[in-house]
Amino acid sequence: MKKWLTISKNLIRKSVIFENYSVRRKSPLSGNEGDFEVLECRDWVNVIARDSHGEFILVKQYRHGVDEITIEFPAGVMEKGENPADTAARELREETGHISNKWVDLGSCNPNPAFIKNSCHFFFADNCEYEGELILDHFEEIEIVTMDLQELKKQVLSGKISHSLTHTGLLKFLLNENT
Amino acid sequence: MKKWLTISKNLIRKSVIFENYSVRRKSPLSGNEGDFEVLECRDWVNVIARDSHGEFILVKQYRHGVDEITIEFPAGVMEKGENPADTAARELREETGHISNKWVDLGSCNPNPAFIKNSCHFFFADNCEYEGELILDHFEEIEIVTMDLQELKKQVLSGKISHSLTHTGLLKFLLNENT
Repeated sequence: MKKWLTISKNLIRKSVIFENYSVRRKSPLSGNEGDFEVLECRDWVNVIARDSHGEFILVKQYRHGVDEITIEFPAGVMEKGENPADTAARELREETGHISNKWVDLGSCNPNPAFIKNSCHFFFADNCEYEGELILDHFEEIEIVTMDLQELKKQVLSGKISHSLTHTGLLKFLLNENT
Repeated sequence: MKKWLTISKNLIRKSVIFENYSVRRKSPLSGNEGDFEVLECRDWVNVIARDSHGEFILVKQYRHGVDEITIEFPAGVMEKGENPADTAARELREETGHISNKWVDLGSCNPNPAFIKNSCHFFFADNCEYEGELILDHFEEIEIVTMDLQELKKQVLSGKISHSLTHTGLLKFLLNENT
């Protein structure tokens, strides 16, 4: 198995969230050649945050993609000049008002290798403490939701917590705890 | 917390994978109004497939989004007229050559509620048996990879298995096993 060869790459459209390219590629195996859609996004960061009582801190917000109110781990986009750990600390403070002095890097994933070119990085922030009011963007409206691990698992299994990146974060947290 | 009100919705571009809309919405809370990117995709299906020896069956393939070779659960797009269970059985047969007589519905997720409007459905197919050669699309090149649960967890934790939807599938499988 080999990577396909890139013949050309053309920007179709640049939006706030992604740059949409059409990439022409050729298979070294079959010789087949075609045009493929690729979205280039900045990297994202998710924070699995737990307070000193063992409660996980999640955010409840309206999401435009699904047109529903969701419950997710605090998360955001890496800004220019930030490393993933910077983004994690910033998003935790902005979206939940909390800070942490105990961070664990849980690694990263690809949100969708089929057509999205970016990574999402995961951090566990333990012993979180409330520092002050949320710092929200113009369009952000967030409520904090806390729950213990059993309830978190239950809401994932029932589908109430539906975001695949929150699922990835929980899986990485659980696997990391057991190693 | 309330859902935002949709004022207008305009198709920007239709590709093979998605329809890209700009949706104008207003917050009932703040009165703020803005234009938001939404990608409407067909639903996807992932199959957590295990053979009679307890080995999980995954697919290795080149992915154009990340420009890398990945290892993932067999998966695909729901075709018109299919229900999720149909798609699961079809993709398992096409991408791995296997069939199963023991299916468990593991529920669904939203791949990215922030800007993608679709669901991904998960099924556990146990006691999988090889029936015949893979049935691949023009651009598909797939190798089968099998591994036990311990190795699967290890490769998720190390990042070698990087697809967030494969992670979601494994999490749903593990939580379902423990209920």
